[in-house]
Amino acid sequence: MHFASDNTGPALPQVMAAVNEANQGYVLGYGNDDLSHAVTAQIREIFEAHDAAVYLVPTGTAANALALACLAQPYETIFCAPMAHIQEDECGAPEFYSGAKLTLVGDEDKITPDALGQEIRRCLDRGFQGVKPGALSLSQVTEFGQVYSLEELRALTDVARAHGLPTHLDGARFANAMVALGCTPAEMSWKAGIDAVSFGGTKNGCMGVEAVILFDPKKAAEFEGRRKRGGHLFSKHRYLAAQMQGYLGDDAWVNSARQANQNCAMLAEGLRAIEGVSFDYPAQANVIFCKLPLATHERLKAAGGRYYDNGVEGGKISVRLVCDWSISTDQITRFLDICRG
Amino acid sequence: MHFASDNTGPALPQVMAAVNEANQGYVLGYGNDDLSHAVTAQIREIFEAHDAAVYLVPTGTAANALALACLAQPYETIFCAPMAHIQEDECGAPEFYSGAKLTLVGDEDKITPDALGQEIRRCLDRGFQGVKPGALSLSQVTEFGQVYSLEELRALTDVARAHGLPTHLDGARFANAMVALGCTPAEMSWKAGIDAVSFGGTKNGCMGVEAVILFDPKKAAEFEGRRKRGGHLFSKHRYLAAQMQGYLGDDAWVNSARQANQNCAMLAEGLRAIEGVSFDYPAQANVIFCKLPLATHERLKAAGGRYYDNGVEGGKISVRLVCDWSISTDQITRFLDICRG
Amino acid sequence: MHFASDNTGPALPQVMAAVNEANQGYVLGYGNDDLSHAVTAQIREIFEAHDAAVYLVPTGTAANALALACLAQPYETIFCAPMAHIQEDECGAPEFYSGAKLTLVGDEDKITPDALGQEIRRCLDRGFQGVKPGALSLSQVTEFGQVYSLEELRALTDVARAHGLPTHLDGARFANAMVALGCTPAEMSWKAGIDAVSFGGTKNGCMGVEAVILFDPKKAAEFEGRRKRGGHLFSKHRYLAAQMQGYLGDDAWVNSARQANQNCAMLAEGLRAIEGVSFDYPAQANVIFCKLPLATHERLKAAGGRYYDNGVEGGKISVRLVCDWSISTDQITRFLDICRG
Amino acid sequence: MHFASDNTGPALPQVMAAVNEANQGYVLGYGNDDLSHAVTAQIREIFEAHDAAVYLVPTGTAANALALACLAQPYETIFCAPMAHIQEDECGAPEFYSGAKLTLVGDEDKITPDALGQEIRRCLDRGFQGVKPGALSLSQVTEFGQVYSLEELRALTDVARAHGLPTHLDGARFANAMVALGCTPAEMSWKAGIDAVSFGGTKNGCMGVEAVILFDPKKAAEFEGRRKRGGHLFSKHRYLAAQMQGYLGDDAWVNSARQANQNCAMLAEGLRAIEGVSFDYPAQANVIFCKLPLATHERLKAAGGRYYDNGVEGGKISVRLVCDWSISTDQITRFLDICRG
Repeated sequence: MHFASDNTGPALPQVMAAVNEANQGYVLGYGNDDLSHAVTAQIREIFEAHDAAVYLVPTGTAANALALACLAQPYETIFCAPMAHIQEDECGAPEFYSGAKLTLVGDEDKITPDALGQEIRRCLDRGFQGVKPGALSLSQVTEFGQVYSLEELRALTDVARAHGLPTHLDGARFANAMVALGCTPAEMSWKAGIDAVSFGGTKNGCMGVEAVILFDPKKAAEFEGRRKRGGHLFSKHRYLAAQMQGYLGDDAWVNSARQANQNCAMLAEGLRAIEGVSFDYPAQANVIFCKLPLATHERLKAAGGRYYDNGVEGGKISVRLVCDWSISTDQITRFLDICRG
Repeated sequence: MHFASDNTGPALPQVMAAVNEANQGYVLGYGNDDLSHAVTAQIREIFEAHDAAVYLVPTGTAANALALACLAQPYETIFCAPMAHIQEDECGAPEFYSGAKLTLVGDEDKITPDALGQEIRRCLDRGFQGVKPGALSLSQVTEFGQVYSLEELRALTDVARAHGLPTHLDGARFANAMVALGCTPAEMSWKAGIDAVSFGGTKNGCMGVEAVILFDPKKAAEFEGRRKRGGHLFSKHRYLAAQMQGYLGDDAWVNSARQANQNCAMLAEGLRAIEGVSFDYPAQANVIFCKLPLATHERLKAAGGRYYDNGVEGGKISVRLVCDWSISTDQITRFLDICRG
Repeated sequence: MHFASDNTGPALPQVMAAVNEANQGYVLGYGNDDLSHAVTAQIREIFEAHDAAVYLVPTGTAANALALACLAQPYETIFCAPMAHIQEDECGAPEFYSGAKLTLVGDEDKITPDALGQEIRRCLDRGFQGVKPGALSLSQVTEFGQVYSLEELRALTDVARAHGLPTHLDGARFANAMVALGCTPAEMSWKAGIDAVSFGGTKNGCMGVEAVILFDPKKAAEFEGRRKRGGHLFSKHRYLAAQMQGYLGDDAWVNSARQANQNCAMLAEGLRAIEGVSFDYPAQANVIFCKLPLATHERLKAAGGRYYDNGVEGGKISVRLVCDWSISTDQITRFLDICRG
Repeated sequence: MHFASDNTGPALPQVMAAVNEANQGYVLGYGNDDLSHAVTAQIREIFEAHDAAVYLVPTGTAANALALACLAQPYETIFCAPMAHIQEDECGAPEFYSGAKLTLVGDEDKITPDALGQEIRRCLDRGFQGVKPGALSLSQVTEFGQVYSLEELRALTDVARAHGLPTHLDGARFANAMVALGCTPAEMSWKAGIDAVSFGGTKNGCMGVEAVILFDPKKAAEFEGRRKRGGHLFSKHRYLAAQMQGYLGDDAWVNSARQANQNCAMLAEGLRAIEGVSFDYPAQANVIFCKLPLATHERLKAAGGRYYDNGVEGGKISVRLVCDWSISTDQITRFLDICRG
């Protein structure tokens, strides 16, 4: 019963197979090999963005920080949600790479166009002494497991664009959101006004690889310089590329996310039917935030249930439950059985 | 005939086996899994440094830049050789992470104690306006394939220490140097006055993993903060650890380096016997810098020989030839045959 | 009627006299002159801190950013009030110099010990992925014109200290707060648990000089390195020193702040008696935040009144009124007369 | 006999008069006052650059570092002479502000077009692993007191431009060079291919002010953001502007530099006629580097002569002698008398 995170399970068999397959012969390093070229071309095709600049990096923090550094200047600020991963969980990497500050918009998990507009105007009103508006960063899936609709994304990027700001999408769970919306990669990115995407692989079945997609190819040289300066250019780049090859082939990435979302939906449906369980946020992808009775929590822990909790309040405990592709129906059934007592 | 680099060949079978083996079940992320703990403990043992802080990162540039950031302050300078990898090939990563400048010592491949002392004194003489001496960084194997003897290492770290400076060892080819010297890891590091080591895995048979070893464990918190801020903390850390497990197990890392050095020695011996070939540096580990007659170069290229060249001078061409464990005797024999014309 | 800021009026006659006086003969640059030594010694005496490291810099932003860089590490965070000058008005200088993030505590002008403790704990709870607690920065006078009592300061630094955090005091209006509290410089700084002070000169009568006082003299070398690297070491340092000499001599700095506070109290007292005027914050030093009826505002503007406004709400306008030593009783009387209509 | 530096003497009377004059009444802060506007307009006129962006900052290091940060990217390198002030005497400020590395060109005081071209090509040849060419920085007057002719400047900026690089001029002694060449400010800057100038005031008679002139006005917003983020935006900006007003009025700056150069020429002429004195560099502006017999040096020191020395070699001592406007003929005559023994 492993719901601690979508980074605790194994990698997809297809990913491992591709990595093993790639481990033969001599190829040029630093991304100059055929496999690396093929994989970035494939990503361009998947995103219907034939001149986008596409790069592979090993971690989500690297993807976010490098992408943002190409969008915002050191004397500017990046607007994001208060609990955004870039604000809470990256130890200042976005600021380190970009030099920009982060400005928190509103106090909700999802940013609203009104709150965004208000914060941009407040920033502009402060004048020359404060940082200038630089970029917007949205998380899709959000930190609390919600998914912006295409209309919501567009409304937000419209506000950003009206003030001349580019928008970055932290897509560590890009595939889960896309499956949830039933849309295409292009619809959830550049067609919705997104300028740069951190396209997650690690949480959805890779060992450690993310793609950064910059829809403006003029950013290519800057990204390459910043990637190397950050120590994120792999010499044996084929092993990043092979992971991505296995991940993208035969829609493995879509199927993996669909499986994770279905697992999550099954778990959520079961929990909703249980007396005393309340949801903090709608579980729209593969992440659930809910409150459990303390006794339930203790039974689950005793039975080996693994998940993060955020403390007790009013006799209940707030927990986060995350599903990935590898979670079996058995695990979910057993978890729900224990919940039911 | 692939002598372009020790990053163009495949990973060791033992490394791949360990990675495949690790790909099962659920384990905690971010290095909190048993395998990660076991591997860092093993490195401590190998280095006879039982309280050292040990970390795994994916690239050599990350290892160097993070280690140096823990040794030098932003208003200080790091002394290194003019052609050091940290100066020439890391796009400013050491400065980005540490904030310090690099000061080039002498104009040779190997730093001499005299040149180091002179440069440190020059730095101190400039007074408050210039950067202060901060750290020494040595490459072992050097950029041009040379190996510092233990006495040479000690003489250099003594000069550094006399001025209060810690010393970093860029050991991207640590194993090759160690095998060449026939010494232990401890003898080539802390016993020789080294404070931090970038212990290479990638060039010697891994897919992408290096260890940073800080012999002063008080640096641990700083390293961890800087690693995460740089985007180099793997969530699925087991895949870094597994590579290192395969690499260290049954002395695979030592055997791999020994094989590479032997391949290189065979190639060098053959070349030395050939009329018109001259060596720029003694080939002491797995890297050769020599000059070939132009006609020889053309025959080699026509036959599919792969290596870097640094331009023509006086009818000869300067080339770099690198061996790794995977180079077969056949490749070397064929290369020499073509050289002989 | 100039209430726009305490940086719009002239410098004190004593400051100008000292600068003119200093403009003779040859002296060593970079702070190695007798006057510079005398002035920093005088500051140590005034603060009863005989081994403190004391430096002069030209701007308050430089003082804050350099002091904070000596207290917090790049992978840490600095706790401050949401409207603190370092957060809102310094264009990211504290982050630029320190590498640290800022974490906003509570949503009030003054930080409370409870809110501080809660935010530190929240930070610690996030674990290795987020920034670590690094330092506390307090503004005295606060951005909205309030003054922390000595007990309040102590309660806050106690919380910080309990978590191992040093505390910085942004004393751009140090003298105004000190006069308001009727205490000594030492009581409002190190005796209250403060580790570093930005001791303001500019707003209280200098042309452009602030002192940074580090009560831990071991920080001296770091400060000096960072100051030069930031471009804040004056070659003709005597002109910073002379300003400070004129400012400190004959208690000019205390008298100037007392005059400013008295001016402000007179203005506040008059406003409180006027129908329709409401105070957003108690005016405890030389800054007033209040709401004026729109008609009053228009009369004032028509008569040449100068002050900042923060927009209209409910028929009233929020304004900020700042006094310095140079504001005459006449200006205040006239302002109040116009307010009375 | 004060030849230690052009920062040890007093400020020009005209500068002091303007500062005293400016110290009345209320004006807006942060450069939004009439005097600040007038002075920057005057600089545009003097440089015949009617849309240039012009800013005042307090130190030469700030001017250089901020200007360079607007020209070079963090993954690029700035080419400069090995002994350039930005390399040797600014404690890493250019790297701190720009993020770029410095690459030293040749081993002479003056850069040659050949050496520059060679170093740029070497940089390009290294490929993606190294930093990219970013900008050229020239010092005029050079560190060793030499002056580039207009033709030399043009030849260097032509090489830079051929590779797409902008050129910065460190003009800490701009006026001394201009007087030496007998040219106009425009001829020695944009007409010679310069993109940004650090226009020195401090060494030539101000208390502490330099102008940065960016001939491309599109850089304005970036400069303003970086200036504030660096803590270099003066709130009471009128005192920077007033210094510059006094400096520029009635050609005070030109006359001051002419006086300094004449003083220097008189001193150099006298020295050249003395047996045993040899010149390391031609003294083309206001700085002399020469060797004195040890006995001469001792007599001078005993008589209160002030200047820097760089150590003894072969019975002679290398010294630097700097003149500013305030050095009297008497001081020079006396110095030469003592030299003559």
